[in-house]
Amino acid sequence: MANRQIRLMNEARARASFDSRELTEFIYGGADVVAKREAEFARIEAALQTPGPDTLPPLYGEVPRTALFLDGLRVGKAMLAEKLAHKHTIFDRITPRYVMGNASPFGVHLIMFVPALKLLGSEEQSREWVPPAERCAILGAYAQTELGHGSAVRDLQTTATFDKDTDEFVLHTPTPTAAKYWPGGLAFSASHAVVLARLVIGPQDYGVHAFLAQLRSLDDWTPCRGVELGDLGMKLGHNSVDNGYAVFSHMRIPRANLLARHAQVRRDGAYVVLDAGARARALYGVMLCTRSALVGHIPLQLAQGGVIALRYSTVREQGRLPFAPAESPEVAIIEYRAQQHRLLSLMARAFALWFAGREAGAAYDATIDAAGGIDSPRLADLHATLAGLKAYATQTVADGVEEARRCCGGHGYSALGGFADLGPSAAAMATVEGDYWVMYQQTARWLLKRADAEGHRWLPRARLAPDADVRNPAIQLDVFRHRAVRLVAEHNASLRDAVQQGRSRAEAWNTHMVGLVSAARAHIEHTVLHAFVAAVGRAPPGPVRAVLTRLCSLFALTTIDGPHGLGFVEDGHVSGEHLRQVRKAVDELLVTLAPDAVALGDAWNFTDASLASALGCRDGDVYERMIRWTRQLPLNVEVAKTAGVFRPGFEEYIRPIIRGKL
Amino acid sequence: MANRQIRLMNEARARASFDSRELTEFIYGGADVVAKREAEFARIEAALQTPGPDTLPPLYGEVPRTALFLDGLRVGKAMLAEKLAHKHTIFDRITPRYVMGNASPFGVHLIMFVPALKLLGSEEQSREWVPPAERCAILGAYAQTELGHGSAVRDLQTTATFDKDTDEFVLHTPTPTAAKYWPGGLAFSASHAVVLARLVIGPQDYGVHAFLAQLRSLDDWTPCRGVELGDLGMKLGHNSVDNGYAVFSHMRIPRANLLARHAQVRRDGAYVVLDAGARARALYGVMLCTRSALVGHIPLQLAQGGVIALRYSTVREQGRLPFAPAESPEVAIIEYRAQQHRLLSLMARAFALWFAGREAGAAYDATIDAAGGIDSPRLADLHATLAGLKAYATQTVADGVEEARRCCGGHGYSALGGFADLGPSAAAMATVEGDYWVMYQQTARWLLKRADAEGHRWLPRARLAPDADVRNPAIQLDVFRHRAVRLVAEHNASLRDAVQQGRSRAEAWNTHMVGLVSAARAHIEHTVLHAFVAAVGRAPPGPVRAVLTRLCSLFALTTIDGPHGLGFVEDGHVSGEHLRQVRKAVDELLVTLAPDAVALGDAWNFTDASLASALGCRDGDVYERMIRWTRQLPLNVEVAKTAGVFRPGFEEYIRPIIRGKL
Repeated sequence: MANRQIRLMNEARARASFDSRELTEFIYGGADVVAKREAEFARIEAALQTPGPDTLPPLYGEVPRTALFLDGLRVGKAMLAEKLAHKHTIFDRITPRYVMGNASPFGVHLIMFVPALKLLGSEEQSREWVPPAERCAILGAYAQTELGHGSAVRDLQTTATFDKDTDEFVLHTPTPTAAKYWPGGLAFSASHAVVLARLVIGPQDYGVHAFLAQLRSLDDWTPCRGVELGDLGMKLGHNSVDNGYAVFSHMRIPRANLLARHAQVRRDGAYVVLDAGARARALYGVMLCTRSALVGHIPLQLAQGGVIALRYSTVREQGRLPFAPAESPEVAIIEYRAQQHRLLSLMARAFALWFAGREAGAAYDATIDAAGGIDSPRLADLHATLAGLKAYATQTVADGVEEARRCCGGHGYSALGGFADLGPSAAAMATVEGDYWVMYQQTARWLLKRADAEGHRWLPRARLAPDADVRNPAIQLDVFRHRAVRLVAEHNASLRDAVQQGRSRAEAWNTHMVGLVSAARAHIEHTVLHAFVAAVGRAPPGPVRAVLTRLCSLFALTTIDGPHGLGFVEDGHVSGEHLRQVRKAVDELLVTLAPDAVALGDAWNFTDASLASALGCRDGDVYERMIRWTRQLPLNVEVAKTAGVFRPGFEEYIRPIIRGKL
Repeated sequence: MANRQIRLMNEARARASFDSRELTEFIYGGADVVAKREAEFARIEAALQTPGPDTLPPLYGEVPRTALFLDGLRVGKAMLAEKLAHKHTIFDRITPRYVMGNASPFGVHLIMFVPALKLLGSEEQSREWVPPAERCAILGAYAQTELGHGSAVRDLQTTATFDKDTDEFVLHTPTPTAAKYWPGGLAFSASHAVVLARLVIGPQDYGVHAFLAQLRSLDDWTPCRGVELGDLGMKLGHNSVDNGYAVFSHMRIPRANLLARHAQVRRDGAYVVLDAGARARALYGVMLCTRSALVGHIPLQLAQGGVIALRYSTVREQGRLPFAPAESPEVAIIEYRAQQHRLLSLMARAFALWFAGREAGAAYDATIDAAGGIDSPRLADLHATLAGLKAYATQTVADGVEEARRCCGGHGYSALGGFADLGPSAAAMATVEGDYWVMYQQTARWLLKRADAEGHRWLPRARLAPDADVRNPAIQLDVFRHRAVRLVAEHNASLRDAVQQGRSRAEAWNTHMVGLVSAARAHIEHTVLHAFVAAVGRAPPGPVRAVLTRLCSLFALTTIDGPHGLGFVEDGHVSGEHLRQVRKAVDELLVTLAPDAVALGDAWNFTDASLASALGCRDGDVYERMIRWTRQLPLNVEVAKTAGVFRPGFEEYIRPIIRGKL
C-alpha cells in the first residue's frame, strides 16, 4: 500500500527526461560493470546480514567505542572474504557504505601497506612480504604520521639507528611528539607496519626511510617487545577503525627490514643509494597512490548526500511560497527554487568531481609503470594536479555533504537521517593525506614554475565579448581559463616585485599566500570543468547526454556566481551584465533539471543499505520509516519494559528535582 | 617544568598589545560580571567533579546513548541546583560547556516552557503553573514540532477536539506525520508539555492553539493514559538531551488547560477571542524569545572554536615557508599568513556576532513589556531582524567552528580535540527554530515591504570614490549599506516587472528566491557591522579599543573580499583597485593582530573544563596532554589488562583472517 510519500516519489521518478539506468552505466563504465557491482553489493550486504529498510540499522542504537570497532572488524573481515572469494577490488578502496576504505581496520592494509611494500621494497622483499592474493597472512599498517608531524615527511622524528654489533635497526620514539599517532589499524588490528623513521648510522642522519616492523606475535597477537600500542578513542567519524598510536622503546628489527628498492645498508654499516631520484619519487608515490584513490572515490560521498536530500525533498511537503493563496496546499520543498539551487548544483559538483577523479586516476595509472616504477618527467605534473584536486575535491565534498544535511532540516540532524556517519566521514578527507591549504600551495608552486618556464606569457586583458553566450561550454572554459591564468600571472608578478624590493622569496610567499591559494584553486576548477565537458562528449547521445550537458553548464555557472566568483569579475572580464545572464541561465537550468532530480540520484545506483538513511530510501516512505526506526531504538525498547520510565535517570536526578530536594 | 609548547604559549601571550582581562570585562559588561561568572563556573565545575586538564574527560571514552543521556541529567540537575541556590540565570541559556541550554534535558523547561506559560497563559494560569523560582515542581517540554512540520506553525496537524459532554479537550495524533517529534526533554524528562494543536470545536477548526498537557504521573513518572513517549536516539550532537516523540491517542485534558491569555473556550463550547492580534503576536513571541537567546549566545561557540585553534596553532610547529632555507627550523603554524587569515577573521566574526547579539537582545527586551505583552509596532521590525540574524549568526558559527576544526589538522578530528562536541552543537543551531533559507526570506519580505513604503527611493549608482580609504569604518559602513539597499531595490524591481508580465507574485518570488536571500543577508551584514562599529566606540580607550578597531576592520574587509563579495563589485561600486587596497589592508591587519591572537582568545574567559580540549588548554601543553589522555581511554586501559590484545576482536575476526580461514 503506497502512502502519500511513496506516491510522490513514484510520480517524481516518472517525470525524468532520461532512463536513470542508462546514466548509471555511463557513470560506472558499462552495463557489465554495473551488473557486477550490483552482485558484489548484494553479496556483501547478505554476508553482513544487513537488515532491510524497515529495520533500524543496529549502529544507530547504542554505540560505544568498543562496539563500533568490533563492527568495523566484522565488516572488514567480510570485505576481505568477499575480495578473496570473488577476486575483485571494489571494496579495496571503499566500504560497503561508500566510505573510504581506511575507515575499516584492514583498509590501510590494502590502500597503503601493500602498495608501499611494492613501491619501496626490493623485488625480493616484495616477493617475500606482499601477501599473496588468496590470503592475508599478515595485516599491515602504514606508520607515517606522528603526534607532531603529518604529511611533512622530512620532519618526522622517529629514529631507526643501525646497531652494527647485532646487525639490527633500533626503532625509537625520542620525544612525545615523535609517537606514531593516527595510522589506521595500528592499535589492535595490524601485525606489521611500514614505519617511516630517520635512518641513523653512527653520527650520520640519512633522513627518513621506510622499514617493515613486526608489531605483534602471529601466534597470540601480543605486542612485540619495545612497542606500546593503543587506540585513539572516539573521533568525529571513522569509529569502526582503530586509528592507533605506537611508542617505540629501542625496538629491534633485522637489517633486512629496511625497504631496499632504492637504498640499502650493508653489513658494515655502509649506506648505499641505488637511485636517489627514484627513492625520493617512491616515497611520493605512496602518497600519490592514496590521493588518487581518494579523489577517485570521495565524489561518491557527495552523491550519497545529494541522493538522500533530493529524495527527502521530493516527499517533504512543507510551507508555501510567499504571496501564495492562504488556502493553497503545502508544496514539496524541492519546488522551492532555493532548494533546487542548493541540491542540483550539489549534484552537478558530484558529477564534475567524479569525472575529474576518473581522469586523474587514468593519469596516475599512466605514470606508475607495471613494475611500480615512476615515470619521472610526468611526476611533477601528476603531483601538482593530485595535490590541488585532493584539496578541491575533499573540501567540496565535505562542504557539500554538510549542505545536503542542512537541506534536510531537523531530520538531517538525527542519526536516522544517515548524515551522522556520512558527514564526519567526508569531513575527515579534507584533512587526511594533506590539509587543503598545504595542498593548494603545492599546486601554486608548480603553477608559478610553469609560468616562469613559459616566459611569463600572459593573455591580453581582453574582456569577454558583451554578447558572449554564457551557456556555451567553450565560453565557460575560456572564462575559467582566463581567471586561472590571470591569477597565476598576477601573483607571479607580485612575488617578483616583492623580491626586487628586497624581501626574501619566503616572506613574499607568505604575504601572497591567500592569493596563491586562490590561483591554485582557480586552476583546479578549470581542470575539473574541462574533465566534465570532455565526459559529456563521451556520454550516450540522447536524453543522458542532454541531462549531463545541463548539469555541466550548471556546474560552470554556479561556480562563476559562487563563493569564489570575485576572481571572474574583479578585472572586468566578466561584467555585471554577464552575471545577470548567468543567473538567468541558472534559473532556466533549474526549471529544466527539476523533473530529473530523483532520476539523477537513482543513477548513482546506491543500495538502501549503503545509504542507511530513513530519509533517503528509494521508495520515499520517509515518515512511517522514521517512526518505525525510532520505536526500535534500544533505549525505547528497554524503557518500555519498565512501565515507560527511564528508571536510573528518574530515581537519581528527576525525583529529587520535582520533590525540591536539590 | 615548562616544556617547549608551554614556553611557546607563554611567549605568545606576553606579546599582546593589550590586557586580555580588560577586554574580558568589556565583552561581558564589567569587572563585577566577570568575577560573578568566574565564581559560577568554578562552583558548577566543582559540583560536577569536572576533572582537571590532565585527566581524560570521561565522555571521550565509551559513549553509548544511555550514558550520554544520564550525564545530561546529571549536568542538568546540577545546573538547576546552582540556579536555585545562587539565584542567577547564567545556566538558563547555556550549559557549563557553552552549548545552548536546550542541549540539557531541562533546558527547554527554562528557555521555552516557562516563557510560553507566561506569554500564552492567563494571569491565573501563570500564577498556578509557572514554577516558583525556588523549586521546579514540574518539568516542562515545548511540543511544537511534528514529524512532518517544524516552524511552520499554521500547518501543524495534532488536534485538540473539545468534548462538551466531559468538558475536556481530546489531544490526538491523526497521522504519522502529526507525531510530535524533536522537542527537548519530551522523551523521559518532562512531566508536562505546552502542546501546540489545532483547536476543533464541532465541525470548526480554529487553528493552532497552545495547551498544557500533563504527560507523566508526578508520583511514579509513568506516562499518562493516551500518550506514547520515546527518545529519538543518537543525533550528530546534543546527545545529553532526550529529544523525544509523543503520539497522542485520544488523550484527555481539562478545558482549563487551553492557554487562555488571548482566547478561551466556554463551558458551552463557544470560542471567545479576547485579542486576536495579541494572540498571533504571542505565538510569535515564544519563537522570538528563543531566537533572541540563540543569537545572544551562539557567538560563544564560535569563540570557543577559535580559542582552541588559535592556541594549538601557537604551539604546533610544522613545516616551513616555500623557498625558506632547507635547514631553517620549523615554524609555529600561526606564522603562516593563511592560518592567520582563517583564524583572525574567524575571531573577528565571533566579536561581530557577539556585539550584534547584544544589540538584538536589547531590542527584544524593549519590545516585550514586563507583563509579557508585545509592543506591536516594533514586532515586525524585531521579527525581521531576529529572523535574519538567526540565519546569519547560526550559519556563520556553524561554518566557522568547522573551519576552526580544519585549522587543527588531524587532531581536530579526534574527540580529544574538543570539536566532536562543539561542531555538531553549532551545526544544530543552523536548523533549529527555523532553517536559514526560510529565515532570510522572512527578512527579505519585510525589506521589500519597507522599500515599498518608502516609495522606491533608490540611491544613485554612485561609484565609490577611487581614493576612498577602505580602512575607514564610515566608508566600510557605506559600502555595506550600498550593497544592501541596491540588492533590495533591484530585486523589488525584478519582482514588479515579473508581475507586470503576468506572473503571480508567488511565481516571481520563486524565480528570484536566491537573489532575495542574498539581499536579506546583505542587509544583516550591514546590521552586524553597524553593531560592531558602535561597540568599538564604547570600548575602553587605549589598547583594548585599538585591538577591537583592527578586528572590526578585519571583519568588514574580509566580508568584502569574501564568499558573498560579488554583491559589492558587480555594479562597479567597489572596483578591482579597491579590492587590491582591501587585500593590502587585510595583510597589514593580520601582521598587526598576530601578536594579539592568544590574548584575544584569553579575553573570552573560557575555563579549560568548558573547552574540554587537549588542543586548547590555556597552558599550551598540547602533545603531552594528548598522549596522557589517550593512555587513559577505557579501551586502552581494558586491553592493557589482557596482555595488549583486544581479545573479542582477535578471536572472532583477526585470527581467522591470518590463518586463511575466511
